Amino acid sequence: MNTELLEKLRSRLGGKGFLAAGDAGPRYESDMSGNNPLSPLAVLRPGSTEEVSFILGACHASGQPVVVQGGLTGLCGGGTPLRDEISLSLERLSGIEEIDPQSMTMTVLSGTPLEKVQEAAAQAGFRFPLDLGARGSCTIGGNISTNAGGNEVIRYGMARALVLGLEAVLPDGTVISSMNKMLKNNAGFDLKQLFIGTEGTLGVVTRAVLRLFPAPLTRSTAMCVATDLGKVIGLLQFLQERLGAGLSAFEVMWPDYVEFITGHVPAIRPPDRRPGALLVLIENEGSQPGSDTVRFESVLADAMNGDVIEDAIVAKSEKEMEDFWRLRDGIGDVRNHILNAAHFDISVPVSSMQALVSGLHDALQVFPDMYRLTFGHLGDGNLHLVAGTGRAADQGAIFDTVYARVGAMRGSVSAEHGIGMVKRKYLHHSRSEAEIELMRRLKQTLDPRGILNPGRVIP
Amino acid sequence: MNTELLEKLRSRLGGKGFLAAGDAGPRYESDMSGNNPLSPLAVLRPGSTEEVSFILGACHASGQPVVVQGGLTGLCGGGTPLRDEISLSLERLSGIEEIDPQSMTMTVLSGTPLEKVQEAAAQAGFRFPLDLGARGSCTIGGNISTNAGGNEVIRYGMARALVLGLEAVLPDGTVISSMNKMLKNNAGFDLKQLFIGTEGTLGVVTRAVLRLFPAPLTRSTAMCVATDLGKVIGLLQFLQERLGAGLSAFEVMWPDYVEFITGHVPAIRPPDRRPGALLVLIENEGSQPGSDTVRFESVLADAMNGDVIEDAIVAKSEKEMEDFWRLRDGIGDVRNHILNAAHFDISVPVSSMQALVSGLHDALQVFPDMYRLTFGHLGDGNLHLVAGTGRAADQGAIFDTVYARVGAMRGSVSAEHGIGMVKRKYLHHSRSEAEIELMRRLKQTLDPRGILNPGRVIP
Repeated sequence: MNTELLEKLRSRLGGKGFLAAGDAGPRYESDMSGNNPLSPLAVLRPGSTEEVSFILGACHASGQPVVVQGGLTGLCGGGTPLRDEISLSLERLSGIEEIDPQSMTMTVLSGTPLEKVQEAAAQAGFRFPLDLGARGSCTIGGNISTNAGGNEVIRYGMARALVLGLEAVLPDGTVISSMNKMLKNNAGFDLKQLFIGTEGTLGVVTRAVLRLFPAPLTRSTAMCVATDLGKVIGLLQFLQERLGAGLSAFEVMWPDYVEFITGHVPAIRPPDRRPGALLVLIENEGSQPGSDTVRFESVLADAMNGDVIEDAIVAKSEKEMEDFWRLRDGIGDVRNHILNAAHFDISVPVSSMQALVSGLHDALQVFPDMYRLTFGHLGDGNLHLVAGTGRAADQGAIFDTVYARVGAMRGSVSAEHGIGMVKRKYLHHSRSEAEIELMRRLKQTLDPRGILNPGRVIP
Repeated sequence: MNTELLEKLRSRLGGKGFLAAGDAGPRYESDMSGNNPLSPLAVLRPGSTEEVSFILGACHASGQPVVVQGGLTGLCGGGTPLRDEISLSLERLSGIEEIDPQSMTMTVLSGTPLEKVQEAAAQAGFRFPLDLGARGSCTIGGNISTNAGGNEVIRYGMARALVLGLEAVLPDGTVISSMNKMLKNNAGFDLKQLFIGTEGTLGVVTRAVLRLFPAPLTRSTAMCVATDLGKVIGLLQFLQERLGAGLSAFEVMWPDYVEFITGHVPAIRPPDRRPGALLVLIENEGSQPGSDTVRFESVLADAMNGDVIEDAIVAKSEKEMEDFWRLRDGIGDVRNHILNAAHFDISVPVSSMQALVSGLHDALQVFPDMYRLTFGHLGDGNLHLVAGTGRAADQGAIFDTVYARVGAMRGSVSAEHGIGMVKRKYLHHSRSEAEIELMRRLKQTLDPRGILNPGRVIP
């Protein structure tokens, strides 16, 4: 342990900013993956960009490895300390600096929880459309660093599409401030791209300018029933044409998912449907309170009359809307029933989705006692799959089986959750050796001493 | 001249692929900026990615500088050869490889003209929404390399938002193939970002996967009349709320623009308006043929009744729609009347637009005989300004005056056209020394011998 460095950091950061290993508690020992929790040498909680710069400059000079921590809701072990690492937590770098209504932007510190960002946008009459289950705990800096997705990607894009500018500190302490507020800026390289989705390996995001959108004036929700995946894909195309950019959610649930959730959570009931049917939760955001509902219902009636779907149940109240979403979010209620399961967050082109799902379902049959939950953001080509036998020993083989198929179909082993520690060994299924080597060259250029989130992402 | 290298390239590329300096003709001597045309040592026209890789590998080994050329419609001199450069033209690397209707993607070679891409999308029942005046000549590879904007950025984003995957050749000849077809892919760094908007300084784009959209079923166009810029900004916010994502164009023309265009092109007549009023050309794309027009007119009626605008003229025919656009595109018809003018493509946050425009108009009054044309994609914060006195000697001072003000407002000296050669000396108004130094480090990492588009972008 480098006591001289720790003393230097303690004296600069003070009591709020420096927690010795024994004082920090278990919060900083792992992200939500829960794998191999470990106490960091110390927890640094800077209160300003200058303090982040001081910390990284000092650690760079000493060759001291640093793990960056936001809300610690990551699922890939990226925020879990490795041996001899110091934790750099952004939790005190929190708050909203400005909302500019004419430019429709918000300037925030990176440790601000996503939900605070959403609420501040709403209070100003706008919408910040990034949304995911961890909204109360995850931070906007973590969302940016992992290029988070969520439920409305089909309309608004991932975090990358919602960031206009940012400030980041390089591993050597250099502050790169690119706090752009414009939709268009082609003055040289767009450096912010280096820090979005690179999981904190190239720099620490400290502030950002976010894009806001007008709050939608109407929201319509329906649960559609389709006989097979081919029909579901037909429905996606039908709605993209007929609802245009209004389509803001397209969440598919396979029968295995619906039966597992409703079988284990008595409070969640599915809508009536033919056994074996797929359910599709759709939403439309509109701007015409007088007529949007009628339009939405008429588009769904056309889908039924055209034999695209079997049935569609339009939510008639907030309660019904919540019930529909409760089924989709029910995956969060069954964690105790899926111990030792393998969780997948994969994507393939929509045109390969049928082949992927049927291939995976077939391939997984070799495991006795296998249970599966199949669901996902199909409009984005993103499939979530939970598969397990209850036996920890089977987990590795299930991972290998699924990722090999995803790789063979030129898909992604991580559509939205990132790579972190736990998916590094599968990265080669989605990226070529030339691509991985270029990632290494970038890492070497920006972090020549390898102190920032070392060992993450790049195999 | 390196005759051994040229001979090696000639023997690999053959008669179609290798044009000696004397055989190439003036086409390759400059882009549309027209500054300092120069004949390259030779013109290389590879027909495959492998040939691009061979060329760059050989030039890297020999330290031979290369200028990359697409449709040569750039406005910043990036494609104009410098002394002792070989030209690498992508014009033979042209064609559409695949359209995947379910995934809504198109795979293209980078030398394909934008208009061919648009037409192929339309034939397949889709829309590729990037559009700009040079559509017939510019290539998709050039659009990607410069992160092109255009008329529909407000709805669909710039080129960056429309590229799902790409293949690029690094300056040392390494092929990086990231031909992703998914909306979501967080498997490691998103390497394609290195090649979008970096103007061919970090690699040569050879292929791309583009995102397609459903063809809109309706289009409504109107010319709005507003008394001042404050009202125009109010109209933008009103329409963003009431038309939602349907708003696909918001083009503002100041009185100086309208008077200059209609004064010099008798065939173009403006709609009736109060003298001094601003005109705003707006479009809405919709998916409900039965009711979109009624909705559009009712939103505009509300804008008039709410005193947001003075008047709105809705196009009742294709002819009227074309007339409205003809006024906006009239800038292309007056090139002979604006010789020696300074052309600006700048952006500031929308909230700074009023201060920028009035400040610029005031500052430019010091030049005698000054004429101005003020117009732009206001929804994106993007202002085009043409200003001149007719005297070439005043051009430099006009540039300095305008860019200094843009810099003081944290704006961009290049919203969409890029930096190339001609704007390098103004880059510091929009980027800090730390940012420019990071650009240099990236350039050094990917192009250590500095052979690819040397001297462009980075001062």
